[in-house]
Amino acid sequence: MYLGRVTGRLWSSIKNPGLEAQRLLIVQPVTPEGEPTGKALICTDATGAGAGELIYWVRGREATFAFQGVDVPSDATIVGIVDEIHLGKRKPGGGA
Amino acid sequence: MYLGRVTGRLWSSIKNPGLEAQRLLIVQPVTPEGEPTGKALICTDATGAGAGELIYWVRGREATFAFQGVDVPSDATIVGIVDEIHLGKRKPGGGA
Amino acid sequence: MYLGRVTGRLWSSIKNPGLEAQRLLIVQPVTPEGEPTGKALICTDATGAGAGELIYWVRGREATFAFQGVDVPSDATIVGIVDEIHLGKRKPGGGA
Amino acid sequence: MYLGRVTGRLWSSIKNPGLEAQRLLIVQPVTPEGEPTGKALICTDATGAGAGELIYWVRGREATFAFQGVDVPSDATIVGIVDEIHLGKRKPGGGA
Amino acid sequence: MYLGRVTGRLWSSIKNPGLEAQRLLIVQPVTPEGEPTGKALICTDATGAGAGELIYWVRGREATFAFQGVDVPSDATIVGIVDEIHLGKRKPGGGA
Repeated sequence: MYLGRVTGRLWSSIKNPGLEAQRLLIVQPVTPEGEPTGKALICTDATGAGAGELIYWVRGREATFAFQGVDVPSDATIVGIVDEIHLGKRKPGGGA
Repeated sequence: MYLGRVTGRLWSSIKNPGLEAQRLLIVQPVTPEGEPTGKALICTDATGAGAGELIYWVRGREATFAFQGVDVPSDATIVGIVDEIHLGKRKPGGGA
Repeated sequence: MYLGRVTGRLWSSIKNPGLEAQRLLIVQPVTPEGEPTGKALICTDATGAGAGELIYWVRGREATFAFQGVDVPSDATIVGIVDEIHLGKRKPGGGA
Repeated sequence: MYLGRVTGRLWSSIKNPGLEAQRLLIVQPVTPEGEPTGKALICTDATGAGAGELIYWVRGREATFAFQGVDVPSDATIVGIVDEIHLGKRKPGGGA
Repeated sequence: MYLGRVTGRLWSSIKNPGLEAQRLLIVQPVTPEGEPTGKALICTDATGAGAGELIYWVRGREATFAFQGVDVPSDATIVGIVDEIHLGKRKPGGGA
């Protein structure tokens, strides 16, 4: 999965039927330190995330597992909202 | 999914039978602000998009969900036309 | 799908049985304007393309749809030969 | 698969049910020589890896094979901890 | 598929059961001209390739077709050893 921040939302009336009722959020990938990195993308959302929130998303077919029973033609889905990140680079002496 | 702008069309008479009757559009990925970013690609289309339109597309196997029942050998499909994008970077105080 | 030009061919006697009888072509990805872009790759071919031809290829599992009934362990397959590309960037006033 | 070093951990209370009971580790991809390369990502873990350990991970749907019977919406999973790497670039005269 | 050169080997005792009995080789991607390009990765091997050999590998789920019947959690597998590459860039006047 990848870290990202929700930076906006997209509206669309002409779309694939599988995307009806899906919120489409604009996500800017970020580093664990919170810096933007790489291209923004559009994610479907399984968590109820809002603008500014730090989230993580999956890409590829895995994203559609979150909506089992429905074929959602999405290749990126927000699967969790981040509470906290603990970085302990290069063996600080303890477990992760 | 990714944002893109339709910049052209491709014609091909020798092709995989699964691509018969599919329109092949050339798409330039763009940022949420509308700037070109990265390489152009060729998408099948499930929306009827035309030149110059701002669209979003899916990549990978997900793209073929849009043509259920037919094995379309495509790895990129336009799944929606953008009406409007609202960018509210870094918690402007409200929901997405 | 992605645009590319066939730039060569690869021979291999020790290979996965699923690749027996498959022609392996070297493809250089190109822009819609025909300029090389990114790394060359090896594609299986479903079209009979030859050296110098402008083609388009699919990546990922989709590539194997072209050889239904046989599990070809390929992640890139040429699915069409380009006749013509029409570029009409940024709404020239008509359809794609 | 790709080499990486575990650099941290992520906590999340709002998440996809398929991620319940999964440890989420932050992984920095590294070269065979151990240098950081490319973007950090979040992996599920099938090995019990801890902070600072050199691991290898798979991406894509393959990652979920490690949790058969459960649809884990992950696209990156740690599948092994590295004991030793032997680099013998450009035919040192023996087998790998 | 992609061209690469085997540059080393990786040993691992703690690993996913699906990787037991799999040789893990370190592969440096190369151009058709033999120059290194991009990041090294770890491949399972279906060919018996050794250090220094020029090979080609597949990525994604396709890689696991080579081990049918067993769910190998690999996303990159060597599927052939290169005998010869013939480059004939930009229509030298003949077939590929």
